[in-house]
Formats: sequence, C-alpha cells, structure tokens
Amino acid sequence: MEDVRLIEVKEEIMADNNQVAQSVRKRLGNTKTLLLNLMSSPGSGKTSLILRTLENLGANIRLGVIEADIDSQVDAEKVAARGIAAIQLRTGGFCHLDATMVTQGLDAIKAEDFDLIIIENVGNLVCPAEFDTGAHKNVMILSVPEGDDKPLKYPLMFSICNVLLINKIDYLALSDFDMAALRQRVLALNPAIKIFEISCKTGVGIAQWVAWLKKEVSDFSS
Amino acid sequence: MEDVRLIEVKEEIMADNNQVAQSVRKRLGNTKTLLLNLMSSPGSGKTSLILRTLENLGANIRLGVIEADIDSQVDAEKVAARGIAAIQLRTGGFCHLDATMVTQGLDAIKAEDFDLIIIENVGNLVCPAEFDTGAHKNVMILSVPEGDDKPLKYPLMFSICNVLLINKIDYLALSDFDMAALRQRVLALNPAIKIFEISCKTGVGIAQWVAWLKKEVSDFSS
Repeated sequence: MEDVRLIEVKEEIMADNNQVAQSVRKRLGNTKTLLLNLMSSPGSGKTSLILRTLENLGANIRLGVIEADIDSQVDAEKVAARGIAAIQLRTGGFCHLDATMVTQGLDAIKAEDFDLIIIENVGNLVCPAEFDTGAHKNVMILSVPEGDDKPLKYPLMFSICNVLLINKIDYLALSDFDMAALRQRVLALNPAIKIFEISCKTGVGIAQWVAWLKKEVSDFSS
Repeated sequence: MEDVRLIEVKEEIMADNNQVAQSVRKRLGNTKTLLLNLMSSPGSGKTSLILRTLENLGANIRLGVIEADIDSQVDAEKVAARGIAAIQLRTGGFCHLDATMVTQGLDAIKAEDFDLIIIENVGNLVCPAEFDTGAHKNVMILSVPEGDDKPLKYPLMFSICNVLLINKIDYLALSDFDMAALRQRVLALNPAIKIFEISCKTGVGIAQWVAWLKKEVSDFSS
C-alpha cells in the first residue's frame, strides 16, 4: 500500500482563480499530464469509479489521484491500498476545490510523473461547479437513486461538464428514474456532453467509459 | 392545487446571520410556529419526506412548506399539488439558506398562520450546516445509497442535527450499507441525535417519525 499524504489546503482569497487555473493547465500541458476533475453529490460513487477505472486502465497509463474532503482520508486510503499514488487534500470546511488548492495537490504528488491525474472533488453539486480547478476535463456522476430531476435543480454543474456518468444503473429496476427524461434535460443544458450509463458495482458500462478516457489521454500526449 | 409563489432571495452579506436567526426564533415563538430545517444531499428524499409527512400529520396541524433551490420550482409544485401552502425560494446560485432568506420566505407564506413550517434547504451536505436558518429543529436525511461513511466526511452536518432520518432502507438488500457502523459513527459525533430508519417509498418508519414530530409541535404550542 502506498503511503497517503494529507495536505491541509487553504483558499487563496485574493488570487484570481481563473488565472491560477490557466497556469495549472499550461504547466500540465508542458508535461503531457491530463487533469480530470470528478464531481458529484456525496455518495454517488466517485471513489468507486476511480477504483473501477484503474482496474481497466492498463499499466501503460501512469495514474495519480488527488482526493479532496472536508475531513477524513478514507478515500485516499482506499485508492492507495490498490498501489496507486494518492494525495488527500483536507479542505477544512471548504465546500469546493479551487485552482490554488489543486496546485498544492499537484506539487505534493509531483504531477509531472503522471499521464493522468484524477481529482476527486468535494461531494457537492453546487459549489465545485463555480470554481475552475485547472482541469482539462470535467466529469460528473449522477447516481440513479438521486433522481432524474437533478438537471433542473443544479443546471450549472450539468452545463460545465464534458462527461456525465449515470452510475448505479443496477438500481434502475427499483426506481422510477426516467432515463429518457434525464437525457433530454441534460442535453437541453449541454448538447455536447458525453453520457455513459454505468454501474461501478456490476462493472456494466465501465469499458466504454475507460475507452473514452484512454483516447483522451492518448490524444493529449501526442 | 395551491398557487406556488416564487421568491428570488438574496444573501444579506453585512448582516450578522446569528442575530437574524435569533430574531426568527423569537418571532415564531410568539406565534407558536415550530420551524424545522430539513437538509440532505441532492436526491436523498427531502420532498418525498415532506409529502409522506403531510399524509400522516393529521388535519389539526397547519403545515406550511418553504422550498429552496438554486433553480426550478418543481418541489414547491409537488407540495402545492397536495393542497399545502408552499413558497419556492430561488437562491440564484447560492448553495445554502441563511436566516435573512428564511425571513423572506416566512413573510411571504405568512408564518403566523401555521403550527409547523418545514424548510427544504438546498441539497448539499456542506454549506447548509454552516448557517443558522433560525429553525428550532434541524433534521437531516441520509439515504442508504449514499453510503455509511458520510459521517466521516461531513461531520458538521451530523453534529448540528436533532434528528437523522435514514431513508431508502428498501435499498438495504442491494447495498453493503452497514447500519451498525453508521449509527456508531453518527453517535460518536452527536450522542443526543434521534435516528429513524424510514422508506418514503414503502412508508416504513414514517409513523415513528411523524409521532416524534407531532409531539414536538404539541410541546412547542403548549
């Protein structure tokens, strides 16, 4: 098991977050390190997705993970237990990551050593959508038990993401979740978004998601 | 169906929120109106709980509902469709309600006409925990699909609540949710919290929760 390093991050109130985010993207462009920002409600399956992804990613892609939570380091420990480099950022009450906090994580994990870094943002559909972390791609998870009305209530999150992963589709049989209505609501906000239906529990749909991710990493490094 | 009124609320940055919250409690104490602040992640079942509660509350208790969302008024419409007075607060991007926003809702719904007002806060386990809304009781929902590790990650929310409702227990059979571990984690943060296991879908546990609520309303008015 890799060691987990815990970093207490602070928001840099005075900095222009967008400017810091641009410099993160430039820095990682230089080292061909793709940065992916993963967001969702609490308990939608962000950590499970990361674990499923690394099982399917193959050894050629060097993956690092930056976990963020208000408190605790259970997620980073789960990732590190699989032998993956992981840093835990503790936001100390903050409800989101900004680009300055991400920079602290990138420094700590030595970002230039990786082809792909996944940030697991704080579980929250509101605030993380408002702060550019410097990531090249924004990915969100909506899980079936949360309901198909969430794009109506959290439109910004659905608007800023490149990919929507609809997780826990193994719960569909128990649920009145209307997949067609959900897709229509999401595409009305964001016609370019890619949507994958997955279950981190059963593994359904993971291959399609990982194929997309591998192509992105490959395109970015070439 | 009752009409739904939509109020665009603004945060009063300069006001001392705790002071406004105290004056909300005093005002509602004068009219014997119990104010309950309902919080959870997106999709944990806040609106479903309100609908189940009003089915079981009985006609003697005059119930009003203040819904809050960043956007949309689907929740207030669902409540109003059952003939219950409902106000929709649109926070315009804000991730929580503060006491000033709640005051605007109380004015709009004419709070003094009710025995019980339930506020459905913005779906978020982080920010709403940080702002005293002026409520007499804080109630949170954690749904089974979110997982039993949430007290480790969002300790403040579990610490400030009087009641925890564990919803969607009909999903327990599909899940690896460890109820004993969850209870232990919650009680370590907040030994005085009341915990009810419920399913808004099947109705299990609703009678116990409503019995608690009726007693609170009765005690408050006497």
